[in-house]
Amino acid sequence: MSEPAQRAALNLAALREKKPLIHNITNFVVMNFTANALLAMGASPVMAHAPEEVEEMVGLAGALVLNIGTLTGEWIDSMLKAGRAAAARKVPAVLDPVGAGATALRTRSARRIIAEVGPAVIRGNASEVLSLQDDSSRTRGVDSLHSVADAAEAAAALARELRTTLAITGPVDMVTDGRRVARVANGHPLMGRVTGTGCAATAAIGAFLAVEPDPLRAAAAALAFFGLAGEVAARAAAAPGSFMIHLLDALYTISPEQLRAECRIELY
Amino acid sequence: MSEPAQRAALNLAALREKKPLIHNITNFVVMNFTANALLAMGASPVMAHAPEEVEEMVGLAGALVLNIGTLTGEWIDSMLKAGRAAAARKVPAVLDPVGAGATALRTRSARRIIAEVGPAVIRGNASEVLSLQDDSSRTRGVDSLHSVADAAEAAAALARELRTTLAITGPVDMVTDGRRVARVANGHPLMGRVTGTGCAATAAIGAFLAVEPDPLRAAAAALAFFGLAGEVAARAAAAPGSFMIHLLDALYTISPEQLRAECRIELY
Amino acid sequence: MSEPAQRAALNLAALREKKPLIHNITNFVVMNFTANALLAMGASPVMAHAPEEVEEMVGLAGALVLNIGTLTGEWIDSMLKAGRAAAARKVPAVLDPVGAGATALRTRSARRIIAEVGPAVIRGNASEVLSLQDDSSRTRGVDSLHSVADAAEAAAALARELRTTLAITGPVDMVTDGRRVARVANGHPLMGRVTGTGCAATAAIGAFLAVEPDPLRAAAAALAFFGLAGEVAARAAAAPGSFMIHLLDALYTISPEQLRAECRIELY
Repeated sequence: MSEPAQRAALNLAALREKKPLIHNITNFVVMNFTANALLAMGASPVMAHAPEEVEEMVGLAGALVLNIGTLTGEWIDSMLKAGRAAAARKVPAVLDPVGAGATALRTRSARRIIAEVGPAVIRGNASEVLSLQDDSSRTRGVDSLHSVADAAEAAAALARELRTTLAITGPVDMVTDGRRVARVANGHPLMGRVTGTGCAATAAIGAFLAVEPDPLRAAAAALAFFGLAGEVAARAAAAPGSFMIHLLDALYTISPEQLRAECRIELY
Repeated sequence: MSEPAQRAALNLAALREKKPLIHNITNFVVMNFTANALLAMGASPVMAHAPEEVEEMVGLAGALVLNIGTLTGEWIDSMLKAGRAAAARKVPAVLDPVGAGATALRTRSARRIIAEVGPAVIRGNASEVLSLQDDSSRTRGVDSLHSVADAAEAAAALARELRTTLAITGPVDMVTDGRRVARVANGHPLMGRVTGTGCAATAAIGAFLAVEPDPLRAAAAALAFFGLAGEVAARAAAAPGSFMIHLLDALYTISPEQLRAECRIELY
Repeated sequence: MSEPAQRAALNLAALREKKPLIHNITNFVVMNFTANALLAMGASPVMAHAPEEVEEMVGLAGALVLNIGTLTGEWIDSMLKAGRAAAARKVPAVLDPVGAGATALRTRSARRIIAEVGPAVIRGNASEVLSLQDDSSRTRGVDSLHSVADAAEAAAALARELRTTLAITGPVDMVTDGRRVARVANGHPLMGRVTGTGCAATAAIGAFLAVEPDPLRAAAAALAFFGLAGEVAARAAAAPGSFMIHLLDALYTISPEQLRAECRIELY
């Protein structure tokens, strides 16, 4: 029973007890699933994006979740406003740079949020996260993907450059704050067939940030928990529709003890 | 077999037969679930918020549902436009003041809709509804929550002040038009773990308003029906994902006879 | 074993192998369900509507899906921009004119998209599609619904007038490019009790357009596949909530062989 597993279990117990308010400014596709995932795991989600109220709302929250999945200029402005208010009030923020690298608007918007908000954690897949590098360092990053050890070093360097914790999800997730690296091996391939599982994992990181002050541990615990929910769902379902429902169920039924026993986090 | 139960059963039968069009201007999080809930129970939902078409659309509808869950200034303008057109055409409206009291924008917007639209019913939890009081009467309201009888009197006073019917949901729901009080004891705690159950209950009130001219009876019948669907779902599901699916199923399968037999409405 | 069935099976196999990116600009109600339906069947959905990025995004896509279900002026502008870029790059587009005929804004917007984008396929129910006629030919269309043969002739005439392929869904679907007519008899009545099944069928046409160059065959194959998924779902579920989940499952589990054996397409 490893120390990160112990800590993840304590985080989940704290989440269930404190029911922190998680303020989400996220995309239209996943709002419902994200809210249901947060409710199922024990948090209290709120979605609010009006510029007139985001500062007031984030003041009530234990964490802020920013997601650029269906961004427009107005939504980015609200994210920046909420994010700056969160930073001023020491409310931790997590960014999901959905589609960064695919279009210029997304890459530019993600970088701007990072510069102006300073999120505690950024969660994305490898190509999204690599697109956040400035253009001078870009080739190095892509080249470094040739080996796992090199990828870890490139990610750590980018985390230091961006002064944040990066959570890069894939078959095995890697979390790094530039100094330490955690690997999380929980998860299931069917998660890729349900829209919003990545976004909901980001929201789970938000929920864990509200109860765990160390961003690297919060991100690793959240990804282990969310990945384990996928594993539990896959024991009962073999196709995406029923898998999605069992995943929500598992976020509710997994106990801190089960998380401690079945999470697969390695911390280096 | 009480008279309100008899009437609720007749309302449900009428809803299934007439399939009224219910025009919703609601929040992004719950649009899909609300539409599915209305379809399952037998109504015909439409979501439309463009200022160019809301007046035309509400003219086709049996009821209008306004919900401020992810409001912005533009959406409030559309709600006001649709609401005024509904009032002019005697189409009943129901308001869900999601988050009123949490931010100034929400409290202000809810009060403005009430003043300009005159909704037949307002449904919210106790803190949302109490926030609708003007500031001079506010302390009284909060204090009055110390006993159930006092809460009923405060709610009735507020209903008279706002010239509407209030449907305050909680472990036991209370509906009052300032003169009469109905209590509805149907429901299940898992409803609080699925996003949009409150919003869908509001939409159900809209559907019942399209077939029942008495707002108090419409609201009580809709809450009993929706709460019973939660009870039926909880007989088959113990976690939020599958509960949500069984709830939609129950909205479709509950017959007028079952509603008459199992609804728990008391009218004072 | 008919030739259209054979071709539909090959299309499904190609879709599963190529996983084409499908760019959707669709309504808020169905975004999540549409994305999940596309993922389940094997495509790669993306939702993006910002004017700054739609041209760039559609350049990465195998097909464009335009849906006016919760339209506003700004969204129509994005649809036109994306649609013109798609036309310039020979990316096929499919239009879902949700609610055309119900409000002037919808009818006008649908006609404008058709004129400026030239979609390969338009999918709607009979009243939506008939509303797309110019006003001079309108009476003929409505009158022609008195017999099935007349309806086919009216639809073919409208397809020629609009220079597109029309997919008119109902108990039996009819697809025509003005020259040929296909009838698709797959489907189940419970599909009408789940919001977004029509919209998801439109998205499925988009996915098939990305692998099948003949719009009539793509539309017929997609509707047969989606309708068969409804039939498979109805074998396991008798109410809308669980039906919706089984429908998503079926989009994932139906093999090309099962589609070939159970699709009911007749081509005239």
